[in-house]
Amino acid sequence: MSWIGSFMRVELINTGTEIIQGYRNNTHLPFLARELFFLGEKFTLQIAAADSKDLVEIIRRSFYRSTLTIVTGGLGPTSDDVTKEAVSEALGIPLIGNEELSRKIRSFYDAAGITVPDWAIQKQSLCLENALLLDNEHGSACGSIIEKEGRFLIMLPGPPHELEPMWKKHVVPWWRSRFDIKKAYRLIGKIVGIAESLIQEKVEEKLKKIGVDEIGYCESPGEVSIRLSFQEQEKATKIMQLLTETFGSDLYALEDKELEEVVIENAVAKKLKIATAESCTGGLISNRLTNVPGSSAAFIYGWVTYSNEAKVSQLKVNKSLIDSVGAVSKEVAEAMAQGALETSGADIALAVTGIAGPQGGSPEKPVGLVWIAISRKGMVPVAYKRFFPSDRITFKRLVSQFGIDLLRRIILDKDLPKC
Amino acid sequence: MSWIGSFMRVELINTGTEIIQGYRNNTHLPFLARELFFLGEKFTLQIAAADSKDLVEIIRRSFYRSTLTIVTGGLGPTSDDVTKEAVSEALGIPLIGNEELSRKIRSFYDAAGITVPDWAIQKQSLCLENALLLDNEHGSACGSIIEKEGRFLIMLPGPPHELEPMWKKHVVPWWRSRFDIKKAYRLIGKIVGIAESLIQEKVEEKLKKIGVDEIGYCESPGEVSIRLSFQEQEKATKIMQLLTETFGSDLYALEDKELEEVVIENAVAKKLKIATAESCTGGLISNRLTNVPGSSAAFIYGWVTYSNEAKVSQLKVNKSLIDSVGAVSKEVAEAMAQGALETSGADIALAVTGIAGPQGGSPEKPVGLVWIAISRKGMVPVAYKRFFPSDRITFKRLVSQFGIDLLRRIILDKDLPKC
Repeated sequence: MSWIGSFMRVELINTGTEIIQGYRNNTHLPFLARELFFLGEKFTLQIAAADSKDLVEIIRRSFYRSTLTIVTGGLGPTSDDVTKEAVSEALGIPLIGNEELSRKIRSFYDAAGITVPDWAIQKQSLCLENALLLDNEHGSACGSIIEKEGRFLIMLPGPPHELEPMWKKHVVPWWRSRFDIKKAYRLIGKIVGIAESLIQEKVEEKLKKIGVDEIGYCESPGEVSIRLSFQEQEKATKIMQLLTETFGSDLYALEDKELEEVVIENAVAKKLKIATAESCTGGLISNRLTNVPGSSAAFIYGWVTYSNEAKVSQLKVNKSLIDSVGAVSKEVAEAMAQGALETSGADIALAVTGIAGPQGGSPEKPVGLVWIAISRKGMVPVAYKRFFPSDRITFKRLVSQFGIDLLRRIILDKDLPKC
Repeated sequence: MSWIGSFMRVELINTGTEIIQGYRNNTHLPFLARELFFLGEKFTLQIAAADSKDLVEIIRRSFYRSTLTIVTGGLGPTSDDVTKEAVSEALGIPLIGNEELSRKIRSFYDAAGITVPDWAIQKQSLCLENALLLDNEHGSACGSIIEKEGRFLIMLPGPPHELEPMWKKHVVPWWRSRFDIKKAYRLIGKIVGIAESLIQEKVEEKLKKIGVDEIGYCESPGEVSIRLSFQEQEKATKIMQLLTETFGSDLYALEDKELEEVVIENAVAKKLKIATAESCTGGLISNRLTNVPGSSAAFIYGWVTYSNEAKVSQLKVNKSLIDSVGAVSKEVAEAMAQGALETSGADIALAVTGIAGPQGGSPEKPVGLVWIAISRKGMVPVAYKRFFPSDRITFKRLVSQFGIDLLRRIILDKDLPKC
C-alpha cells in the first residue's frame, strides 16, 4: 500500500522507429503505467510516433491538453535523435549548450572505451533553457524536466535499462516533492487459479460498498492481479480482509510480486530444498524459479526428461510402467516426482508430463492434457490431471503456473487443490 | 522475401484500459507492424486510449488523416466495450442489428457452454451499415472493415489469440486483393554476435548503393534483425549476397525465424540428438529449445544442475575438481558437457556455468562471468569464457543465446567462434 498525489492528465509519447515499427516491445508503457499507479495517476493517452517532423505538433498538442507529458527516446547523438529539438520547437524554449554536461558525457564515453566525435558530444550536451537535468548512470543521454505555464514535460532516454533507474532515482523523488494535492491509497492483490470474471463477480459489489474509487483487473495466463485505489487509510484493513476471506489461499500476495518470488522467499526462509522434473514444460519451471535472485539457496536440482529414456535413466521411472500406461499418466508423473525427490535429496519435488502440441495428441490423450505431481519427504505423491488446450507457449506457461503454485501451497502449508 | 502493395498512411488505435493502464503488453503493435512490413506498409502513428468518450474524436481525426485506420479491442458485450459505438458516431454510420450474426454468436456461446443474456448477444451482433464482416473462429466478437470516401477502417477484437488468426485469415487476403498500386520487395536478415552499430557500419553504405529504400535495425539481447525494402526483384540476389559475404556464419537466417528454430530444424533433419547441462541459465536454454514444435525429435535430455552436488552426482563432474578450480571454470564447464554427452547418449551436449548475480560475485569471478562448453561425439569439448555484466534476466538471455548459437554452428558445420 502506498500514499499518493494529485489527479491530473498525464500523456505518454514514445518516439523512435523501433517502437512504432514493432522492432521492440513498448515496455515503457507498462513500466511507467505501473509506476504512475503508485503515484496515484494514470495515463489518459499514449502515442507512438516515428522520429520525424510530425513530432513537433504531437508534442505541442499533448503538452497543452495535459498537466504532464512524458516523452521517451530520441536523446542520442545520431541524426534520427530529434526529441530535444522537437520539444524546443513545440514549446518555444531555446536549446543551450551545457559545458558541465559535455564533460560528463565525455567521461562516460571514455570510461566505456568508446571513441565519439566532438559534434556528437556537443549535440548530446544541448539542454532546454531552465530544464531540470536528470543524471543517467547507465548511458550518455541525460533526461530533463521542463516546466512552463504550470504544465510539465519529462524527457527520458529510450533504452529501458537507462529509463527505468532514472525514473526511480530522479523522477519519483521530484514527483513526490512536487505533487500532493489530493491523497489516495493503493493496493494490489495477486490471485491464482480463478478467472477474472469470477473474481469480479465475487468482490466488485463489496469493494464498491467499502468505497473503493477504482478497480482494475489484469489477467495473464494462470493469474489475475487486482489493483485498487481508495481515499481513507482505514479502508485498507477492510479491503485486505475482504480479499483474504474471499480468495483464501488463492490470494498469493498483497503486493506486486511474482508467484516464483513467493516460492523462493518462503523456501529459503524455511530452509526447504526444491527439485523439479519437467517433461512438457521443457525447463520453463526451473527457468522461472531461477529468475529469482538468491534462488540457489532453495532450488538445487532440475531435470528436463524430454525423452522416455531420460525419465527411466535419470528419475528411476520403471520402463514397463511407461510402456503400459504411457508417459503422460498419473503413475509416471508420480514416479517422476518421487524419483526426483529421492535422487536429489530435496525436501520437495515437482514433476510435469503432458502433451504441448501441436502434434502428438490422440483421442484419449489430446493436446493440452497434463499430469502434475508433487512429492514431499514423508508424504505420498499427489497427482493432478489438468487440461489446458492452447498454443504451445501458453500451455507451457499454464502448466508452469499450476506447478509453481503447488510448490507455494506445500511450502506454506496451504490447502492443496482438489485432484 | 515477399511482394507487396501500395504506400499509404496507416494508423493504429488500441482501445481498452488493459493496454493504456499497462496491465498487458501491447502485442498488437509489434504483431501488426511486422504484418504490415510484409504488405509493404508501416504505421505512421499508434495511439492507446482508455474506453471512453475521447475515443470518438480520436477515431475521427485518425480516419480523416489516414488511408487506413486499424482499431483494436472494445468489441465485447460489456458496458466498457464501446468501439463500434464510437466508430459509428465518429464516421456518422448507423449501427444495425444482424440476425445471422446473432445466431452465430449464440451458437459460439452454446458450444463453449457459456450462458449469456440476450441483451449481450444483441449488443455484439450490431454492425456498422455496409461493413464487411470478418469471422472470428476463436471468440464471439466479429471484426469488420468499413469503407467511406476512399478511406478504410478495420475493427479487430482485443484478445491476441482472436486478433492474430482473424488478421491472417481474413484481413490479409482482403488487403492483397484491394491494394496493389506500387510494388516493393521485403527481406529480413537475422544476425548473431555483432552489435547493431557495427552491422550498420559494415553494410549500410553498400545497401544504399544497391538501392534499398528502407533499412531498419532491431537489436534484442544477442541478436540483430535487419529489415530491408526495395523496388526491383533482381536486387534481392545482390542484397542476399552482400549480407552472406559480410556476415558469414553470423547471419543465421534470411527469414523471420528464431535461433532455436534453426537449431531444432537442422538437428531433426540431420537426426542429431541434443542434451543440455545448465547451471546459471537455470533451464532457459532447454525452455527455448522446447518452445519449438517438434523439438522432442532432437532434444532428449536436460539437466539444471544448480547445486554443486547435482553437477557431481548427475554429470559425473569430479568433486575435487570443483573444490580446486571452482564451479565457474573452464574445467567444470567441459566436464559438465562431457558428462551430459556420455550420460544421455546424445550427439551434442551444451553446458553453461556462470554467475548470474546480483550476489555471488568476487573480484576474480565477477557477476556476469560465464563458461560455456560444447561437446560432440568424438570431439574434445571446447569451452568459451564470456563476460556479460548485466541484470540477471538479460545475463541468462545472453548466455542462452551464445549457447544456442554454438549448437547451431556445430550442427551446421559452421566455424566456431574464437575461444
